[in-house]
Amino acid sequence: MSDPRDALYCTESMAAVWSPAVHVSQLLAFEAALARAEAHVGVIPHAAADAINAACTTTPVDIALLYRQAAQAGTLVIPLLDALRPHIAEAGRTFLHWGATSQDAIDTALMLQSRTGLDLLDADLRRLAEVCATLAEQHRTTLMAGRTLLQQALPISLGLKAARWLGLLTRQIQALHNQRQQLAVQFGGAAGTLATLGSNGMRVAEILATELELVLPDLPWHAERDRVASLASVLGITAGAMAKIAQDLVLLAQTEVGEVSEGSAIGKGGSSAMPHKHNPVDAIFALSAAKLAIGQVPIIIGAMTHEHERAAGSWQAEWQALPDLFRYTSGAVARVADAVTNLQIDAARMRANLDLNHGLLMSESLTMALATQMGRPTAQRLVQEIIRRVLASGNTFQQAAQADPQIQALLSTEALEQALDPAGYLGSTEQLIDRALAGHRAVVVKQD
Amino acid sequence: MSDPRDALYCTESMAAVWSPAVHVSQLLAFEAALARAEAHVGVIPHAAADAINAACTTTPVDIALLYRQAAQAGTLVIPLLDALRPHIAEAGRTFLHWGATSQDAIDTALMLQSRTGLDLLDADLRRLAEVCATLAEQHRTTLMAGRTLLQQALPISLGLKAARWLGLLTRQIQALHNQRQQLAVQFGGAAGTLATLGSNGMRVAEILATELELVLPDLPWHAERDRVASLASVLGITAGAMAKIAQDLVLLAQTEVGEVSEGSAIGKGGSSAMPHKHNPVDAIFALSAAKLAIGQVPIIIGAMTHEHERAAGSWQAEWQALPDLFRYTSGAVARVADAVTNLQIDAARMRANLDLNHGLLMSESLTMALATQMGRPTAQRLVQEIIRRVLASGNTFQQAAQADPQIQALLSTEALEQALDPAGYLGSTEQLIDRALAGHRAVVVKQD
Amino acid sequence: MSDPRDALYCTESMAAVWSPAVHVSQLLAFEAALARAEAHVGVIPHAAADAINAACTTTPVDIALLYRQAAQAGTLVIPLLDALRPHIAEAGRTFLHWGATSQDAIDTALMLQSRTGLDLLDADLRRLAEVCATLAEQHRTTLMAGRTLLQQALPISLGLKAARWLGLLTRQIQALHNQRQQLAVQFGGAAGTLATLGSNGMRVAEILATELELVLPDLPWHAERDRVASLASVLGITAGAMAKIAQDLVLLAQTEVGEVSEGSAIGKGGSSAMPHKHNPVDAIFALSAAKLAIGQVPIIIGAMTHEHERAAGSWQAEWQALPDLFRYTSGAVARVADAVTNLQIDAARMRANLDLNHGLLMSESLTMALATQMGRPTAQRLVQEIIRRVLASGNTFQQAAQADPQIQALLSTEALEQALDPAGYLGSTEQLIDRALAGHRAVVVKQD
Amino acid sequence: MSDPRDALYCTESMAAVWSPAVHVSQLLAFEAALARAEAHVGVIPHAAADAINAACTTTPVDIALLYRQAAQAGTLVIPLLDALRPHIAEAGRTFLHWGATSQDAIDTALMLQSRTGLDLLDADLRRLAEVCATLAEQHRTTLMAGRTLLQQALPISLGLKAARWLGLLTRQIQALHNQRQQLAVQFGGAAGTLATLGSNGMRVAEILATELELVLPDLPWHAERDRVASLASVLGITAGAMAKIAQDLVLLAQTEVGEVSEGSAIGKGGSSAMPHKHNPVDAIFALSAAKLAIGQVPIIIGAMTHEHERAAGSWQAEWQALPDLFRYTSGAVARVADAVTNLQIDAARMRANLDLNHGLLMSESLTMALATQMGRPTAQRLVQEIIRRVLASGNTFQQAAQADPQIQALLSTEALEQALDPAGYLGSTEQLIDRALAGHRAVVVKQD
Repeated sequence: MSDPRDALYCTESMAAVWSPAVHVSQLLAFEAALARAEAHVGVIPHAAADAINAACTTTPVDIALLYRQAAQAGTLVIPLLDALRPHIAEAGRTFLHWGATSQDAIDTALMLQSRTGLDLLDADLRRLAEVCATLAEQHRTTLMAGRTLLQQALPISLGLKAARWLGLLTRQIQALHNQRQQLAVQFGGAAGTLATLGSNGMRVAEILATELELVLPDLPWHAERDRVASLASVLGITAGAMAKIAQDLVLLAQTEVGEVSEGSAIGKGGSSAMPHKHNPVDAIFALSAAKLAIGQVPIIIGAMTHEHERAAGSWQAEWQALPDLFRYTSGAVARVADAVTNLQIDAARMRANLDLNHGLLMSESLTMALATQMGRPTAQRLVQEIIRRVLASGNTFQQAAQADPQIQALLSTEALEQALDPAGYLGSTEQLIDRALAGHRAVVVKQD
Repeated sequence: MSDPRDALYCTESMAAVWSPAVHVSQLLAFEAALARAEAHVGVIPHAAADAINAACTTTPVDIALLYRQAAQAGTLVIPLLDALRPHIAEAGRTFLHWGATSQDAIDTALMLQSRTGLDLLDADLRRLAEVCATLAEQHRTTLMAGRTLLQQALPISLGLKAARWLGLLTRQIQALHNQRQQLAVQFGGAAGTLATLGSNGMRVAEILATELELVLPDLPWHAERDRVASLASVLGITAGAMAKIAQDLVLLAQTEVGEVSEGSAIGKGGSSAMPHKHNPVDAIFALSAAKLAIGQVPIIIGAMTHEHERAAGSWQAEWQALPDLFRYTSGAVARVADAVTNLQIDAARMRANLDLNHGLLMSESLTMALATQMGRPTAQRLVQEIIRRVLASGNTFQQAAQADPQIQALLSTEALEQALDPAGYLGSTEQLIDRALAGHRAVVVKQD
Repeated sequence: MSDPRDALYCTESMAAVWSPAVHVSQLLAFEAALARAEAHVGVIPHAAADAINAACTTTPVDIALLYRQAAQAGTLVIPLLDALRPHIAEAGRTFLHWGATSQDAIDTALMLQSRTGLDLLDADLRRLAEVCATLAEQHRTTLMAGRTLLQQALPISLGLKAARWLGLLTRQIQALHNQRQQLAVQFGGAAGTLATLGSNGMRVAEILATELELVLPDLPWHAERDRVASLASVLGITAGAMAKIAQDLVLLAQTEVGEVSEGSAIGKGGSSAMPHKHNPVDAIFALSAAKLAIGQVPIIIGAMTHEHERAAGSWQAEWQALPDLFRYTSGAVARVADAVTNLQIDAARMRANLDLNHGLLMSESLTMALATQMGRPTAQRLVQEIIRRVLASGNTFQQAAQADPQIQALLSTEALEQALDPAGYLGSTEQLIDRALAGHRAVVVKQD
Repeated sequence: MSDPRDALYCTESMAAVWSPAVHVSQLLAFEAALARAEAHVGVIPHAAADAINAACTTTPVDIALLYRQAAQAGTLVIPLLDALRPHIAEAGRTFLHWGATSQDAIDTALMLQSRTGLDLLDADLRRLAEVCATLAEQHRTTLMAGRTLLQQALPISLGLKAARWLGLLTRQIQALHNQRQQLAVQFGGAAGTLATLGSNGMRVAEILATELELVLPDLPWHAERDRVASLASVLGITAGAMAKIAQDLVLLAQTEVGEVSEGSAIGKGGSSAMPHKHNPVDAIFALSAAKLAIGQVPIIIGAMTHEHERAAGSWQAEWQALPDLFRYTSGAVARVADAVTNLQIDAARMRANLDLNHGLLMSESLTMALATQMGRPTAQRLVQEIIRRVLASGNTFQQAAQADPQIQALLSTEALEQALDPAGYLGSTEQLIDRALAGHRAVVVKQD
């Protein structure tokens, strides 16, 4: 019953988590846990709980029919309980769903699915972070152009670029982890008062939360959706982080840049008409999955205006938007992970690209070398004059600098060479890489 | 292979239009039509076209496998052609997809599906418009409160409310119709130059458009997505129109208002725990489907930044967002159509609600009746004084007005009664209803 | 130079925080702090730092001119430094902005402004939370209808409704506080390597962060915008929380519900044409400000695809969207705070509304009372039968229930009365209120 | 009172159109025209109309105060009328705003401002389209790489790229023009019935529309916002079109591509630290303005759920979002117009870039040349084999092709050269340019 389209934007495992069948199974898990909790507190007989538990694990459910009925009933839970009831032994039938409302079951099921979904994302993000950590370590001094506004600015190292991706990933791992720790059970009954349970409501709620290993919130949250909106925005931001990395990869893979390409596999990224093309397919699908994921966030934040004790329309939109958000985010993460893991790196091209534009990339370095001696404004003016000569003559920056008498007077040949050597102008690059690696280790250790 | 969740937010027929299988069938329709067009122009042999047409209609396709391959290849078309080729007689094999690029096939297929999708929406909108037209006609003088900022303001008629819905619907029918007339074939080859076809490109394009009954655009639109964004926004606005009507219904159905309810059917809108509740389920799902639909629009407009001659990520997001937009819009329209068609109207409650708040709803009417004689500012002050007395005493507005000597001096008993009769303060209501009905008829006639 | 429109959607103090003049002053604060930090580390002379500090506090800036120049230069910092330089004593001029890039100054200034902005929001949210806490306490047992899907469902108390608002507010206060703790200095130099500072980069960064009382991040975050996106989404969710409360108020203020109204003041919420109307103006503007605020969030999350080491377009959009998000959120919070603070509560109308619909609101209560004796399915069927009689006869639910022989047999008169008394069917309401109050106190205490 | 920030994202003239002062002047224009129309129909005395007209043109208004009052009153119109009234001669005072509601004035004013706004956009778009038309004509055969998924695909000409921009612009000019033709007066009175005007409502409406040169709609549209949403989406799509062109420019201006740069001016796009950098500032601000513009669209479409006869919150959000949308769109259009007008084109670099990647860009051309003789599959395999040799040897594609015996057998030297000449593989480029130019002329002529 899975949708073939999932293959494009979604991992198989995440698609499975959010399948209708799994959703229904989690609704049943809620009903069973509720019965156990109520029996524990003494609200319903243990025999009733046993009967309900048995039915929840054995009743066959016609998923497609259930959704069609839900379209009329307003929620899945009403027809699901109707389907379940005949399978419950007499003693338990009365006590099914005792004191609960449909939204209790549905929201709790969504949180249980979210937990699994977050675990899947966590695993893929960690896999990706490991690869970035390795890149950061191995390419500490692999020189490449730092680019601002898509213009070459100063030299950096590939290791630093990977370290910045790593820092970004580390923060997402942490943020998703925080969300996981806050996933809360929903239990309030028809109007959030747990009226049916008299004075036993909170005790049942407590044990229910324990049973399901979810947080017990201060209050039901039927109509206060900041929890869902917060989860959604963390997912959307994770998708945005993937888009940033994927965008970098697509830009680096341009024909005219050629510094990376995605690993080839049969049937991967080729073009029937243009055999020379090798499209960065993983990065491209990561970008599209991220766009789709990010697009779900405003649906959920925008739907926070739940009316009174339960919403008429806003809640029902979450049922689709939250699963889709998880699904698309999984695709974005997995695709970036695949792209980075199999990345082909052309360090020679990276180095060669630094010499484009006559080597002018090193002009700030030279300016700085001169600035300590002649003040920055004067140094800037001098370097700008040399740049003009470079552009007029077609010489390299180095040639023009060497030929300038003022520079000759101020800098020795070695000093000039050093000022023009990209490897010597990396500033705090090593320390920054160290900080990113340490930050990553701290998160990994803390959570394991 | 259909998704059970479609039952909640989508019509069955619209889900079918956007199924993977139909998408693939439309890709094949493109390839077949292309071959016919090229044979017609003499670019490829007629025998080749026949062989390709035959294969396009008979080759069995493993849809799920195809999507998995597409995830690697970058588009569905590459593996689809691979699957097709062995089934094409030798003479035609070479000429499959001749001169085209994947995006030509995919965009054209999406436009063919859009055409069917627009036809389905058109039918449901017309059905809904007919019902609104009937309501407008039948309830020309069924009095109810006009409400602004959710406060009762002045009397209107239910017919006028329906007429305003009708006007809204008429404009959407027209806007969708305009979109349908503009659906364009996509045909540009790998970089939009139709390079493979030498000097025959435009002739092939012309015949291809004719074959598929699509518009021939001035230029390929691989990377200029205003057409798609325009289609998307019209769909989103249609969904927004549905949300407006659905929101009105939900508000009118409130326990405290009670002027309408959705028709009951077994299993419809009930609550297991609260048998007195009758939820407006159709309107609620219309609202959620509309929220989901509207949420897709910024994904598509936001993805207009297609890079150069074909996009890396933005285009691929459309494949999911545009179908979802059609699907959710269909759900919104169908649900509103169902809700309005089966609407239970409580005209007595509508009339009774006009008397809430001591009958103060008629205060503008009285102000206006007095204003012609004493000037509006003075009239306003007098009426405000009477309102104060009403609120202090608990009397009705009529009682307080009748007791006021100034009013007694200016208005006869009949004149006062008339000034306080909601039926007499409907202004241009009848004419406005006529205009809405005429506007509706004009669109229906023009398009049939 | 403030925009008159701010009066509608924004507090005066928040408008001031995000004024161009304050932004420029924070840019200068960055430049001054940077000079101090660099002098501290020994990278520049103390005299230079002193000269720069002096100029940063005394140089007059033509703000309007500066923005026009920025439109050409690409950032405010370039023309600002040009304007500043002539005012710096010779010794310092060279060392202005030493090692920094425009984005270092701008992002840091935005974080400094965000800190003030968060403090303003915190104060208003705390004020609002206090009022809600008082309402929760005072109206623990003020009965009103709990409404789900805008249908009356079960009785709740106004105190519980306020407690749920309080819980929502408490979480937003906490979330904004967490953001405040994470505001990070930006300092990376032209390509994020701090190349100009050689081996001193990280020490300067550390002291700069201390000077400005901002967090020192692991790495510069020029192009990794999860921090900004996270801040934006927390603001958007706060706005969404305001929309939820405001929506509740608007719905409760409907003519047909009439349970609350906004406090009157001269010129507040009246209608010239309709003197009986009293519009909930604060809630309405809160809703519109929230819509505007939430609308900025996807701009920021969607702009996370910053290219390489600095973005071409995405970053520049944040300059407008983040300030607007703060501004609109402030309006939403302040307007809700005003509305709730001045709320007129009509407890009698709340109680009276519970009897609408023949008192059927208590049907679940009766069902539950009967269910323990005859099983819930049987009880449900019996109660539904009684509801049918109520709707046919026009009797009240109580009358119909008392007349039923089965109920007479099972429930004593007192038991029936109790089952039909809303005050007796509030379940865990008191405990839930206690939990909300305790949660609120914990956050207030922790942060003070 | 203008905001300095406007300089970054907005044209000065568009900022002026949407200034508070102009908005108020258009509110006054509405009130004056209404009085004239009502006098014409005989609903109010001519003397009253004269008095009102006089006051509307001479009364000084404290704009800042007015907005503060509006924040309490709910709309600008209430305090504006209060400010106006003392300045109206006695005879007219009563008849000010006769039969109208605040929303009539505000919506009509917004439409009048929109008309001017659309005219400004039209002028800038036409200016830009002219430049693109010239580029298309002049660079018909200036060779450059066509790039798909940011990989070089096939040769195109710069003229074709400009022609595609032109086609995009032509459609936006047309779409904005269509919107302009549909701008409608708003006139319905307090609940949309024109109740105050008795039987004269529609005649007044008709003359009012004529006075203001706006369309008379079938019905008031206080709560049916498809007109506004449609206007908003056309603006957003225009902004999206600008983003597409700006994105192309930024990509072409990359250091590694270097095919275009923005014209230099003093203070334009430079970098103090990096004198070699020349940032494409216009394109970058166009991108950010477009992001901001597009971000307003979902606010407006999402706010279509206006409740009943007038909205509580959704309408009030339009007051800010629609002006901002116009403002940002103007910035996007003007910045792209500036960028393209002053574009520095490096045709030599364009040609040189075609030879990157060993000349493999011509592989489809060779495949096609071979395909007619050996079938496409075989030709593809052969060309892929040659590509492998190229990548292994470092030779050019031409060298490897010439050395292949199979190719030698099938293609003469001239035929091979022709197959490898980019200028010979432009397909329908010239015709497509002609079509774009013709489409542009048709729109320009039709509208002038």
